[in-house]
Amino acid sequence: MRHIDSLIFAGWVIPGEPEDRILEKHALAIHEGKIVTILPIEEAVREFSARVTHRLPQHALIPGLINTHTHAAMTLLRGYGSDLPMMEWLHEHIWPAEQAWMSDSFVADGTRLAVAEMLTAGITCFNDMYFFPETTASVVEELGIRACIGLIVVDFPTIWAKNPGEYLGKAEGLYKHYRQHSLIRTALAPHAPYSVSDDPLKSIAALSESWDIPIHMHLHETADEVVQSQKQYQLRPIERLENLGLLSERFLAVHATQLNDNDIEYLQLHQCHVVHCPESNLKLASGFCPVPRLLENGINVALGTDGAASNDDLDILGEMRTAALLAKGISGNAAAVPAAKALHMATLGGAQALGIDDITGSLKPGKAADVVAIDMSALSTQPVYNVLSQIVYAASRHQVTDVWVAGQHLLKSRILSTMDMRELQTRILFWRQKIGDDS
Amino acid sequence: MRHIDSLIFAGWVIPGEPEDRILEKHALAIHEGKIVTILPIEEAVREFSARVTHRLPQHALIPGLINTHTHAAMTLLRGYGSDLPMMEWLHEHIWPAEQAWMSDSFVADGTRLAVAEMLTAGITCFNDMYFFPETTASVVEELGIRACIGLIVVDFPTIWAKNPGEYLGKAEGLYKHYRQHSLIRTALAPHAPYSVSDDPLKSIAALSESWDIPIHMHLHETADEVVQSQKQYQLRPIERLENLGLLSERFLAVHATQLNDNDIEYLQLHQCHVVHCPESNLKLASGFCPVPRLLENGINVALGTDGAASNDDLDILGEMRTAALLAKGISGNAAAVPAAKALHMATLGGAQALGIDDITGSLKPGKAADVVAIDMSALSTQPVYNVLSQIVYAASRHQVTDVWVAGQHLLKSRILSTMDMRELQTRILFWRQKIGDDS
Repeated sequence: MRHIDSLIFAGWVIPGEPEDRILEKHALAIHEGKIVTILPIEEAVREFSARVTHRLPQHALIPGLINTHTHAAMTLLRGYGSDLPMMEWLHEHIWPAEQAWMSDSFVADGTRLAVAEMLTAGITCFNDMYFFPETTASVVEELGIRACIGLIVVDFPTIWAKNPGEYLGKAEGLYKHYRQHSLIRTALAPHAPYSVSDDPLKSIAALSESWDIPIHMHLHETADEVVQSQKQYQLRPIERLENLGLLSERFLAVHATQLNDNDIEYLQLHQCHVVHCPESNLKLASGFCPVPRLLENGINVALGTDGAASNDDLDILGEMRTAALLAKGISGNAAAVPAAKALHMATLGGAQALGIDDITGSLKPGKAADVVAIDMSALSTQPVYNVLSQIVYAASRHQVTDVWVAGQHLLKSRILSTMDMRELQTRILFWRQKIGDDS
Repeated sequence: MRHIDSLIFAGWVIPGEPEDRILEKHALAIHEGKIVTILPIEEAVREFSARVTHRLPQHALIPGLINTHTHAAMTLLRGYGSDLPMMEWLHEHIWPAEQAWMSDSFVADGTRLAVAEMLTAGITCFNDMYFFPETTASVVEELGIRACIGLIVVDFPTIWAKNPGEYLGKAEGLYKHYRQHSLIRTALAPHAPYSVSDDPLKSIAALSESWDIPIHMHLHETADEVVQSQKQYQLRPIERLENLGLLSERFLAVHATQLNDNDIEYLQLHQCHVVHCPESNLKLASGFCPVPRLLENGINVALGTDGAASNDDLDILGEMRTAALLAKGISGNAAAVPAAKALHMATLGGAQALGIDDITGSLKPGKAADVVAIDMSALSTQPVYNVLSQIVYAASRHQVTDVWVAGQHLLKSRILSTMDMRELQTRILFWRQKIGDDS
């Protein structure tokens, strides 16, 4: 008998590869933070002796969910200025609030709230873009979740940096600091085509190649963005980025709601990834990402929540469902984006986009034990005919009971093991009072 | 001091009339099942002596949610045959399963599961359409929820009735039996224009007028329905119903995803109500109900979940959010269907459609105490800037802790007081094993 750290016996294991596989009454064996194997429970009992055994007969195990686009600290602005036209919302509410309150302690507390929300929702990895990324990274280290930290670059000065040169200098420092970290990766994060000019974009293209890290960027989020770019550069944003050498298999195009045939060809040609944020796109009335067409063209699609100020939650299980439903509605085909495909976008699709699919994104021997247990015995998921369909269309994040990241049991029976919740609630209240009423 | 049955002290009370009102730190006074008044907590302490006092400083009280279109018993077919084109799903999965398993005990158990799910989600009233409505009604009586029971009529024979004459005869019996009931109303429920012919529809128009009860009917759910009607009758379905005298302020048009200007004029002229089922319409790729246009034209819009086989949950809080998001996305206007309007559709809009807005739908003195308490202290609704926005865009049904129907405390700290959950789980398992695998 082989001695290992832990065994999880589950009603169902959904490994994610191949994407529609469902294993009933199987066990997941974990040792030193990695998945050893997945096998029938009765075989696991014979083969392994585990230090800890979790018995979850009513639960389904899925790969940890990946939130491939968020601005974590914006949880502190959740619901701040809702139901407004996008430009009024940005210019009159969000940007002034950020201008007034942005600091490393805002980012630290907002990120703590975000990580607490994400872990309890089964998210084991997130791809962030915000100011004070070094603060986000240290909260990530403190709490044990996996993350890709965006090294933000914009043309204009903020409290964090004065000009593109300073943004890029800080980016280099952070990239070097985290290069060898087991849970933290970095990505170059030029905010958007309209907020970063050609020179810094060229530097970013070169750095992405030399450091071999992704470029994480808002792209074609709104029709107006495309129109403005055509006016200013006589090019659609994606054409401009192509000219500047940004497009490659390391490029993540976030939103992509405005795509013509030519744009899709560029994405396909350069093997770019698209990060679909369906709820944010709906709330801000940005348009519809043509997910079924992207998938038909072999383009990898991941899912993101966007920031909590435009969503208003960090819930990838919810985005999966919205993505699956919206694709059907918009394409007029009830068979579009079936449950297994939605789960793929929320797991392995995200890992591929971030270039970490050798480490996470599916339950595969040798990968990190990034695992989520969902209790299927809740009324709202009964009866279970097809567990995959039930997870995507009926389960909610409140049925997530246990979460492991690299084998660390971060959520135990819905209790976060690495956070002081009382302290967190106090900090949220502090910011609520400081920021004041949204009026 | 006045002696009353109960007082609820809440962090926020959202009465629903006027639709954007938010009262902070208010109390709801309840006596003999009805709302006495809403007043500041400090005044309530001076004015009332209550047999029971509930202190919910972190909670928001809202009017009980109304699910204005469902097929409750279909919970037993939740997730049965997902991700299929609609006609394949109906003809090869749902109808054969119904044919094989439909019985009064299927309806009783399915409705118990539905009512348990709905009460825990803050739904205090539902408008049903299914076979064996007398069974649905007796489960409703047993459990204490409020309902409008659809007296179903279709041309074809089912296990419940052989022909329109028998359907209508049974309808009359049920209508008379429940005419004086405090929680149960009935509605004539001709299934759809394509499944009920002219003669029974004419009878239904006459009975609706003479009994003064609503007509609850699927209408313009799919483009194909409209095309088929034009072929068969040279009329769009709504034109045919108009000719047959069905349209009035007692008519509920469910789905209404295919509406031209003329159709909207008919709805407006006859003061019909539209029941919008956004998640079902997305999942079955039926089309989009033009909610902002209907509202602009003064047409009342309510919300429904549809049956759990095409949704896959009975969650009006979720439908509210989907309705608010989808309206923005489809209309391209981020200010369309703001939070207060979404809550209105889910409460008073439903009561108006069912003709019971004198009894329920808002927290108003003299109305029944149909009340829902939502815990806003959850991480995912923190911080609270605008509680109404937070309820619609961030809260989930798992934050519903307490529910009262006509003053009866049916959900207490998330425990259902009128149900034996063990027995229910046993019955669900029985049906799961009987119906077998969805393969």
